[in-house]
Amino acid sequence: MVDDYTPWGYAQKMTETKTPGYKASKDELLTRLARAEGQVRGVTRMVEEDRYCIDVLTQISAVRAALDKVALGLLDDHARHCVMGAEGEERVDRTDEMMAAVGRLVRGG
Amino acid sequence: MVDDYTPWGYAQKMTETKTPGYKASKDELLTRLARAEGQVRGVTRMVEEDRYCIDVLTQISAVRAALDKVALGLLDDHARHCVMGAEGEERVDRTDEMMAAVGRLVRGG
Amino acid sequence: MVDDYTPWGYAQKMTETKTPGYKASKDELLTRLARAEGQVRGVTRMVEEDRYCIDVLTQISAVRAALDKVALGLLDDHARHCVMGAEGEERVDRTDEMMAAVGRLVRGG
Amino acid sequence: MVDDYTPWGYAQKMTETKTPGYKASKDELLTRLARAEGQVRGVTRMVEEDRYCIDVLTQISAVRAALDKVALGLLDDHARHCVMGAEGEERVDRTDEMMAAVGRLVRGG
Repeated sequence: MVDDYTPWGYAQKMTETKTPGYKASKDELLTRLARAEGQVRGVTRMVEEDRYCIDVLTQISAVRAALDKVALGLLDDHARHCVMGAEGEERVDRTDEMMAAVGRLVRGG
Repeated sequence: MVDDYTPWGYAQKMTETKTPGYKASKDELLTRLARAEGQVRGVTRMVEEDRYCIDVLTQISAVRAALDKVALGLLDDHARHCVMGAEGEERVDRTDEMMAAVGRLVRGG
Repeated sequence: MVDDYTPWGYAQKMTETKTPGYKASKDELLTRLARAEGQVRGVTRMVEEDRYCIDVLTQISAVRAALDKVALGLLDDHARHCVMGAEGEERVDRTDEMMAAVGRLVRGG
Repeated sequence: MVDDYTPWGYAQKMTETKTPGYKASKDELLTRLARAEGQVRGVTRMVEEDRYCIDVLTQISAVRAALDKVALGLLDDHARHCVMGAEGEERVDRTDEMMAAVGRLVRGG
């Protein structure tokens, strides 16, 4: 049985037919997240070593940019798979959820 | 010798006399960063487990909020210690750096 | 002839049948924009009168919040009408445009 | 009598001696604000004319960018004049206000 609720389950089903590039996209998200995690550890080390705050802030800006990319990648998947793959009431609900998530991202949440 | 360039070196010197709460502030930053790192790992796990993208996005918003708090804490230190503790040309330079860092944070950098 | 490309044209067609609340939404956007314009004029006046910069900044934050609401309202319309109302290649294109717009908003554009 | 509380009052006093470029900076802020106001009117017209939502969003992003520039300019003035020009308790208060304003800007306020 294929779970078509999660974008990846849905995408895996599609993989065989229409969107072979999607699986890589999940790997790409994981690669970006691994890098973001390493960057956060780097920030921790900088604070521990009493590094100049402006340099630490530059590094934090880099983590935020990395996370924003991950977030936009997830939103894109959601729009293309979860919303488009649904019908009627469910599609409306998923669009609501998408817009609420966009609102949180735009308003710095 | 006390390095008064980094806010923590500077603060440690102050600790004995005027700002006993500051040391805790460094610990506080490290606690927040440890939590942010754990949250990023949580996001990674959610992506690996094909969790619903909206739930992953909510978690990413939480990491961003945590990092923003760390960034604002560092800016605050910079304003109070690095900028105020400097004189003349150096103070101007550190104010320039502070404003550039604020710009990167405001413009989503 | 009804132009179904613009969300409002499309929505007006729908108004008679399914989404009677939409027309009001356009009015709502215009009301918010009128308020935002008045707020920008208020900021101008404050700068002219040499008001305390922090008070001016508070007012600018209010304008940004108002504009973000308008932007989120437009994105919502786009998702529900322009994207959903399209098929195939056109739907993909409009989703691309939507994600690019979200990216600009999230990254402070 | 010179009001040294507002950055412009303060700056005007300085103008004769150290910062001749400052007066232009107030004009610059007003020029940017006039442009932002015109841009908001442009957005209103686009909504009235049922223009494609993505084009309206692009225009809104331009207004936000313009307002962010004004906000960063005001913060810069505040840091250099209101904070630096104050002493003791008052300087601490103005730094608090500055950091609160930065927080509102960073968190999308």
